[in-house]
Parts: sequence; structure tokens; C-alpha cells
Amino acid sequence: MTSLDELPIRDDLRGKKPYGAPQDLVPVRLNVNENTHPIPEDVATDIVRSLARAVLGANRYPDREFTELRTALADYLGHGVTAENIWAANGSNEVLQHVLQAFGGPGRRVLGFPPTYSMHSIIAGGTGTTWVTGERGPDYVLTEADVVGAIRQTRPDVVFLCSPNNPTGTPLDIDVIAAAYDATDGIVLVDEAYAEFASGPSALTLLEGRPRLLVSRTMSKAFAFAGIRLGYLAADPAVIDALRLVRLPYHLSALTQAAAVAALAHADEMLAMVDEIIVQRDRMIEALPALGYEPLPSAANFVLFGGVADPHALFTKLYAEGVLIRDVGIPGHLRVTAGTEAETSIFLDTLARLSGR
Amino acid sequence: MTSLDELPIRDDLRGKKPYGAPQDLVPVRLNVNENTHPIPEDVATDIVRSLARAVLGANRYPDREFTELRTALADYLGHGVTAENIWAANGSNEVLQHVLQAFGGPGRRVLGFPPTYSMHSIIAGGTGTTWVTGERGPDYVLTEADVVGAIRQTRPDVVFLCSPNNPTGTPLDIDVIAAAYDATDGIVLVDEAYAEFASGPSALTLLEGRPRLLVSRTMSKAFAFAGIRLGYLAADPAVIDALRLVRLPYHLSALTQAAAVAALAHADEMLAMVDEIIVQRDRMIEALPALGYEPLPSAANFVLFGGVADPHALFTKLYAEGVLIRDVGIPGHLRVTAGTEAETSIFLDTLARLSGR
Repeated sequence: MTSLDELPIRDDLRGKKPYGAPQDLVPVRLNVNENTHPIPEDVATDIVRSLARAVLGANRYPDREFTELRTALADYLGHGVTAENIWAANGSNEVLQHVLQAFGGPGRRVLGFPPTYSMHSIIAGGTGTTWVTGERGPDYVLTEADVVGAIRQTRPDVVFLCSPNNPTGTPLDIDVIAAAYDATDGIVLVDEAYAEFASGPSALTLLEGRPRLLVSRTMSKAFAFAGIRLGYLAADPAVIDALRLVRLPYHLSALTQAAAVAALAHADEMLAMVDEIIVQRDRMIEALPALGYEPLPSAANFVLFGGVADPHALFTKLYAEGVLIRDVGIPGHLRVTAGTEAETSIFLDTLARLSGR
Repeated sequence: MTSLDELPIRDDLRGKKPYGAPQDLVPVRLNVNENTHPIPEDVATDIVRSLARAVLGANRYPDREFTELRTALADYLGHGVTAENIWAANGSNEVLQHVLQAFGGPGRRVLGFPPTYSMHSIIAGGTGTTWVTGERGPDYVLTEADVVGAIRQTRPDVVFLCSPNNPTGTPLDIDVIAAAYDATDGIVLVDEAYAEFASGPSALTLLEGRPRLLVSRTMSKAFAFAGIRLGYLAADPAVIDALRLVRLPYHLSALTQAAAVAALAHADEMLAMVDEIIVQRDRMIEALPALGYEPLPSAANFVLFGGVADPHALFTKLYAEGVLIRDVGIPGHLRVTAGTEAETSIFLDTLARLSGR
């Protein structure tokens, strides 16, 4: 049997392990910030109808410009965004990869602020972009001074800001984003994967007059569409032209386009679940202190909580009870997704029992 | 309005134009080697049923290891291939991108033999791999001496062989592939996108004992699945491990996986169209000389023909008549996809009229 080491793989990949959150079918899965509410049945019916039409023409390449989808995404976003401002790809990971292929790459630097979405540094590595980092303040909050200071110090070509931040849930003030933009001649990308769960204004409100500002989103979270893989961003049309140069032709399948367009037509119904998820998130933030834990403020669909003596041990105990959450590698902390009311009850009850409360 | 030049785009992208075959809705579209036969209705019904199940679970991330699909692809390929030998991605373009991310990249070289599939050099550029080229002999045939000579001269890290070759249709003897493998310590990738239309043995027969040999395929052509975007490859399990390091997690959507698995269960019915397409291809090869053109031998679902005094002019005249074929940039030549019997008749009749025959 041949081993990986015997193959002429790139040196920078030697010894690496692939990304791998568990996908086990335990009863309560609150580990990857999915929307645990299934898609409403009438919406699913419309999506399937749309897919059926797409299958009949599936022998032809899909619309390379995904024009109908770009229009639907622009309508959903509002804030004066039009189809010409929209890009999309197979998950926001691929969107970010396109951004770094166009504006990062070998000899260029991207600045991030850990702890943050773990794929940011992985995508930097995959595109040959040097990953440089700045510091966060207490409770992982980012201030204007933090961001502007880090930009001056590292002189990045691209700045990644995560709003709200994953895995901490920390909201980001749009004044900080504006200050970051003014401090650099490079690209500023705001990853708003969890924006629908936040109460503050979106970075979309800053797009006008800022052609180097990119705001990325995903349908995986608020839209309960993680399985469909649809990430997107809004930016100046010139940015979209740049991304066209690096995307593989026909990168978005006819099925992806059809499913996303159909779901966006039901945005109100899909987003009704968001309010329910926010209730469960806030319920956990309220309940965790009584169990001896220290939840951080969260503007997302998950809660990072500290005060965990042995995160790996507690993760393992919860897992044995059929409750899967996430050890994100922050000492003394674990992260839990806000699920349905029933899932949240099971999580809190199990945690109380395991914690002797 | 901001222009692309005002943005901090990478220098190597400045002045480039995105890939762009026309997607116009003219009556007869024979320009991008699609399978112009729609998916049979009973197969489409099964695919939609499979998609409907996938939509109900679409709020969860898809199986990152696409295990069911890998098993179905292995069963389809035969030749002793198992699920552990299979990789897949959103079109064979993404498969090739993964291969160059893992085994090519900055400081490494990939060898190809133009004229060949235009995306090979584009994907090399996109991954920072240096594209080096070897020469083909008369009628674009590649011999052992051609390939081994080019490997000794350019010392590539990866060799791309296209079998049969696009856009020429030229078959490739598997002895040439075996000789290429022996002449290099690098990766040898055989792009068999059109293999189902060829009569010679597949490079799959060479996999045993050759851990650096990769054979890529697509469902876009023989399977009439261009809109679904499913490319794949077979190789040693260690190669698959390497590709896991560079893929973005959850890169294959639940819809893509469900549709492809359902179609593969109907492989016999889907491939019945292949025989009909071969008939039309051979019909064009037989008819073109009488119209004053020189078709090359083809083992694919298209024909490259020479003897065209002004390819751009003839392309434009055909287009004005509602027949879209492809000017692939080879002087004196045009390429036409083998479509249905009716489409082939329209193409040949229109060409005869325009050529004064």
C-alpha cells in the first residue's frame, strides 16, 4: 500500500490533516452551527418543483453568469444592491477562495483576527496567501484601534473581518469596519455568515462609495441551506469582474441555482426560524451562568462559553450522552449551536446533570 | 464607476478576460460538446425523487466524504476500482484544480500537449503552476517518443494527457500513457472526459501498481449531466488522501450527490445515448469531405475539421443561420459537437448550403 509520504505532494502539505468536524448521527447535533430546523414543507415543495425543471435541462451547461440567482440575492439583500454587485459560489468558503485568488496569492498577505473562522487561514494557505494576525481585546472585542493598528503594522493586501465573529459570537461595530477601510489601500472583506442573527447594522450599509469593501454571506445558516452550498458576496461591479477571472467556468450547478432561487422567493418564511433560534441562543446565555459557566455575548446562532475546567472531557461526556457540541481549541471554552427548543432543553438538561447542578 | 484596473488585483490577472463560450439560445447548439439528448424522462423522475429526499435534509451539511457517491462511481467504472480510489468535485475542472493544488503550485511545472483542453493551462495559471508544453506529431497524434522526449526535456511535476484529446478528438494509445508514467517520478493525469465515446481501452486498466497515475472523468458528456457539475477521478487511495487536504470542506452539495447517485443507477439507459451520438459523429466524418472539408479522426463526441479558408467567417455564417459551433483557434479548423440526428442534419445541410455544395 502506498502512503501519502511516498507521493510527490507539495512540501507545505506534508504532515497536514484534512478539516474534519465529526458528522456522526448522534441525536442532538449542535457542533457546526447549522440551522437545525428543517426546511418548511411548502418551501421544500417549491424547491423540488424548481429542481425538477432544472433536471430536464441538465444535459446543458448551467448559466455561467447565474443571472436569475444574482438578481434574487440582490433583491434579498436590499440596501440598493443590484445583480451587478453580486457574486456567488459553492459555499462562502469558495467565495473567499475566489477573493484570495484574485486579490491575495503568493507574495501577498491577508490579515485576520484569531480566534476567528478556522477556514480563513486554511483558505489563505490553499491560495498561497500569507496569513498574518492582529490581536483582539478583552472578550474578543475588536476596536478601531486594534484593527487600524494591526493594518499599519502588517500592511496587508486583504483584511478579513468576521461580523459577528465565529467562534466567539462577538458583534463588530460598523465604525470599526469603516476605519479599517480608511486605513488600507487593500481589500476589506467582512464575513457576515451569521449576520441575520445580529441586531446591529450590516456592513452592506457601507458599500456605497467603497469599491474595495466586500460583504460575504451564506445561505447555510439563516436559510437552513447548509446542504445546498451557496455562499455569496456583495461588492462593486469591478470586484465581481475580478472574481470572474478566477472562477472555474460553470462553477454553480443548475441545481444549486434552481434551489437557491426557489428558497429566496420564500425568504420571509425561511427567516421566521431565525427569531426562534435567537430565543434559544439567549435562553442558553441566560441559563449557563447558573450551571457554573461563563457565556460570551453572541450576535450569532451559537454561544461560546468559558469556565470549562476540561473542555475535552466535557465535550466527550456530552457526546456520550448523544449531544455533539464543539471544542474550538480555546482553553477553558466550548461552543454550542442554538438549535430547536427541544434540542436546547436536552443540551441544558444534560449539561446540568453532568455538571452536578 | 470603478474600473477593474483601479482595484488591487494580482498583477498576473491584469488585462485578462474571463473564459466565455457563448451561451446563446440559438436553435442548434453544438459548441461546447454537451450531450444534446435530454435526460430520459423515467431517469429524470428518479433523480427528482432523490433530490426531494435531499432537500428535506438540506439544513444539514452534506456528507463531506460523499461515500454513497464514491461507491456508485466505483461500481460504474469497474476495473477493480473501489470507493477508496474515487475523488469527485464540481466538474472535472475542480478535480484538476485539486490535483494541481496538491501536486503542482508555485515552483512546480505541469506539462501539457497543445492544442488540448483550454482549461488545463488556465487551471495551471490559477494554481500558480508553471505550464510547460510538448509537441504533437502529424494530425495531433502523440507517440511514446513525443511524450517521453517532452518529459525528459521539461522535467515536469505533473503530466496532463487528454485521452481522447479535446479539441482534436485524437485517441491516445495506453502504451503511450504507460511510457509517460515510467519516464517521470511525478504525477501522470489522464483526462478521460470523453472516454465513453472511444473504442480503445481506458487508462483505468493501467491503475494497478501505478500509484502516481490519476484517471479523471466527467458526467457532463456521456451522462448528459453538464448542468449538474460532477467530475471525478480514480487513483491510489494515497492520492485521494492528498486531495482531501486541499478541497474545501463540504465541496459537493447534497443535491449534486443525490442527483449523481440516482443517475448512476441508470447508467445503462444514460449510456444508450452514447451509441447514437457515435453514429452522428461518424456520419459527420463521412459527410464532411464531400463538402470540401477535412475531418480528423475522432474518438470523442465532436469532430475537428480542417480545410476551412476563414474559420471566423464560416463560424459567423453558421451562427447567423442558428447553428452554433466552435472556433477553437486552430488555423483553418472548426469544431462541431455530435448532436442528435436532427441537429446533425441541420448542421450538415446548412454547411452544404453555405459552402455552395
